[in-house]
Amino acid sequence: MSAVTSLSALARLRQVLGEIVDLQRAAELLQWDQETCMPPGGVEDRAAQLATLQRLAHQRFVSAEVSRLLERAEAEVEGLPYDSDEASLVRVTRRDLELAARVPSDLVAARADAAARAAAVWREARAASDWSRFVPAMEVSVELSRRLAEAVGYEERPYDALIRMSEPGLTTARVESLFAELKAFLVPLVRRLVDLADRVDDRVLDRPCDRDAQLALALEVIRRLGFDLNRGRQDLSAHPFCAAFGPGDVRVTTRVGSTLRDSALLSSVHESGHAMYEQGIPRSLDRTPLWGGASPGVHESQSRLWENLVGRSRPFWEWCLPRLRAVLGETVADVDVDLLWRALNKVRPGYVRVEADEVTYNLHVLLRFEVENELLEGRLRTVDVPDAWAARLYDYLGLERPADALGPLQDIHWCSGMGHFVGYTLGNLIAAQLMEAVRRDLPDLDRRIADGIFGDLLGWLREHVHRHGRKFTPDELVRRATGSPIGADPWIAYVEAKVAAVYGLT
Amino acid sequence: MSAVTSLSALARLRQVLGEIVDLQRAAELLQWDQETCMPPGGVEDRAAQLATLQRLAHQRFVSAEVSRLLERAEAEVEGLPYDSDEASLVRVTRRDLELAARVPSDLVAARADAAARAAAVWREARAASDWSRFVPAMEVSVELSRRLAEAVGYEERPYDALIRMSEPGLTTARVESLFAELKAFLVPLVRRLVDLADRVDDRVLDRPCDRDAQLALALEVIRRLGFDLNRGRQDLSAHPFCAAFGPGDVRVTTRVGSTLRDSALLSSVHESGHAMYEQGIPRSLDRTPLWGGASPGVHESQSRLWENLVGRSRPFWEWCLPRLRAVLGETVADVDVDLLWRALNKVRPGYVRVEADEVTYNLHVLLRFEVENELLEGRLRTVDVPDAWAARLYDYLGLERPADALGPLQDIHWCSGMGHFVGYTLGNLIAAQLMEAVRRDLPDLDRRIADGIFGDLLGWLREHVHRHGRKFTPDELVRRATGSPIGADPWIAYVEAKVAAVYGLT
Repeated sequence: MSAVTSLSALARLRQVLGEIVDLQRAAELLQWDQETCMPPGGVEDRAAQLATLQRLAHQRFVSAEVSRLLERAEAEVEGLPYDSDEASLVRVTRRDLELAARVPSDLVAARADAAARAAAVWREARAASDWSRFVPAMEVSVELSRRLAEAVGYEERPYDALIRMSEPGLTTARVESLFAELKAFLVPLVRRLVDLADRVDDRVLDRPCDRDAQLALALEVIRRLGFDLNRGRQDLSAHPFCAAFGPGDVRVTTRVGSTLRDSALLSSVHESGHAMYEQGIPRSLDRTPLWGGASPGVHESQSRLWENLVGRSRPFWEWCLPRLRAVLGETVADVDVDLLWRALNKVRPGYVRVEADEVTYNLHVLLRFEVENELLEGRLRTVDVPDAWAARLYDYLGLERPADALGPLQDIHWCSGMGHFVGYTLGNLIAAQLMEAVRRDLPDLDRRIADGIFGDLLGWLREHVHRHGRKFTPDELVRRATGSPIGADPWIAYVEAKVAAVYGLT
Repeated sequence: MSAVTSLSALARLRQVLGEIVDLQRAAELLQWDQETCMPPGGVEDRAAQLATLQRLAHQRFVSAEVSRLLERAEAEVEGLPYDSDEASLVRVTRRDLELAARVPSDLVAARADAAARAAAVWREARAASDWSRFVPAMEVSVELSRRLAEAVGYEERPYDALIRMSEPGLTTARVESLFAELKAFLVPLVRRLVDLADRVDDRVLDRPCDRDAQLALALEVIRRLGFDLNRGRQDLSAHPFCAAFGPGDVRVTTRVGSTLRDSALLSSVHESGHAMYEQGIPRSLDRTPLWGGASPGVHESQSRLWENLVGRSRPFWEWCLPRLRAVLGETVADVDVDLLWRALNKVRPGYVRVEADEVTYNLHVLLRFEVENELLEGRLRTVDVPDAWAARLYDYLGLERPADALGPLQDIHWCSGMGHFVGYTLGNLIAAQLMEAVRRDLPDLDRRIADGIFGDLLGWLREHVHRHGRKFTPDELVRRATGSPIGADPWIAYVEAKVAAVYGLT
């Protein structure tokens, strides 16, 4: 303890970093508000506000003051354990600063400004299902991602720079090798399951689902999973997301559909997986760069784990079906757990990534990963994205060309640049790998889930994932939690077993 | 034009001021969110974020850079007309800077932090109707107001410093003389009208009013008055307010009651009066200190004018009653305009300022003004506020001691310091004075209002008040619009005439 109290440069560094975090969280709230509340006329003002907040946060972070304090703090923490709060804070701040220092303030502001403007254009273009309306905003977005990659630097491919920023320790080559394993497994599997489609009857999912009922059920379920509503809330937005403004205020958004298939439930469970991660990070890491998820990929592992490995499991529906019956009444009176569980796991190649089943989902990500690389490297023109999209959709999923709203306009992500999708597949892989480790420690997990007891699972994740915040790289974290670096085998084994059970394969 | 394009220091000053405005608007949104959306757990994080944003805005404003640019800009605008955008920007920035420079950054941060914390305590104390729970937060608030007054400086009374900050050009002495006129007129008038209470039957206001119906009607009405929903929205909060985040995003909040008496309608009209003021300030003044209302008092003149001089007028109800019938149906089928209009103008001494009729309202403000002066000058202990409150309530309105929730805990204002209430009475006076001038220019105003045509009135206000933003002091603005400085006579004449009509006096 005495070592800590004497760390005066570190203490001062914490103060400055705290202010930077406050600016970033204010910007997060402005973005949350833009998606949930802001009137259409606010776009211009909001873009200016976001640009200012993000520019000031960036300027402050790359200031001479932070550099000086960080250097002194590095000397102060020498000899402290690698995983101590102090050593980790200094190490991660250094890593963040090295990247941030390479990105000029103007580029940071330009990206924030472009993202806010593009979000409004995207909404209009999607409503009109017209990619050409989004092309000018997309041109800007691609160009800004290219400038970002040039600024950060890379040896072979611009995408390396983007991965370095989001998933420290990983490379494009590593991701491509994971994707190659998945592709080899998935493309033939999807073809086979399409041929066996008759084996799983999922018409139950087309039954109507009252809007208020689905929202009420979603809220009841995520609260039961462990989402703390005293420190969070749920709202509606076009594209569901989770936003964290500190340990005491972590919010999810969801969207309602008209049937069981597109109901709010599993979308809410997904976002609450993100939110429980943020709510599980200790206050001792608050207002520092250590407060937050380890990476987008690790973050996605938490949402995927709750959405798919829990929310699409048979034990979960043993617990949840009576609750579904309570809010929907007659509509599902004749439905049994087996029917509903199999329906929810039917493999149906479709256009929309966020509605995709677990098996086809990673092929959606692969498609975007490839398109993004081609755009960044100038091998694809922005205006031709719908063609490139259609060609891959056919090769990987056997689908005909979709309307733009169901094609490249389905995601808001490209408004704020490239490189966001890889984390989703990493998240799937990490989720399965963590779940293997969970089952070793909690052999009766399925029984507990069937009883509606989720605290043991959440406790395991708090202990092995959440409490570390951003201390470790994705590989470090996964290795500490499971004994191995990130790999595709656990996910492939999990999917093989589930598909065999759902489709009655041998 | 060439004069403007060569103003390089002014152009640079505008950039810096724009960033400061962005920080302030972000803080405004964080406050709006705190009142409308934030979960209870967010209090601590939010206080830190607000303190940081407000401290950074303040530091930036009182920086050497702004001083240097402002000095050069003052030389650049020499010879430009007093009311030009450029000369006004420099003049008002100098005035703001002189005040801001006297207030240390630490005090700014402490006030923001205390306000956020006190708001949460106030909500709990009010729910428990227990002033003693709020006393510690109130002690901090009084002490911070005292420190603020000392920092700003004053000759005789600390309140002078607070008025100087909010209503430039006015003094405590001027306000006291206006209050003296009002008190001499009002205290005997209230006694007389209480004796004549039987002359006005307001039981119609106790009829039930469906929550959704009142919100729908309120939204329809404020949109018709001229509130632009493309650049704004309406939400619910415990205490209604208006918040502006720029020309494209101005929001009002309202609250619902269970009867016509406490329905959302006139509260929404009030807040939309504030909002239309902000929406009427030209984009040419955006992101500068000139964007915003001239003062809290002038701001309140707009809300009062729409709420009382329009919303409680007979012509307004000729137009509005059919709309009220459309949403409430049978409930008001037997009600005629005269009955409803007289009921809405019945003078009923009551505990709650925001529910007070026009006649007793200013006495509520007088009470707070006197209590605040006593607290600031150490003549009253915080713990004794409920006693001081009760004594005045009896003298001015003839009422017995209320529960704390209906006494000093009814307003959120003291969470963020003192000196806020004077503007409400100034607003009443200015509203009546403006309306006299409006009627000279628009002699058939009543007929138009009865036809639901509000554009001429809004146009007059846009031209004579809104378009100037913060260019002029309250007295300058009122003198330009009406020919005289702020006075009490127009309001007294207006109330005398209205009371005579409602009560059938001669």
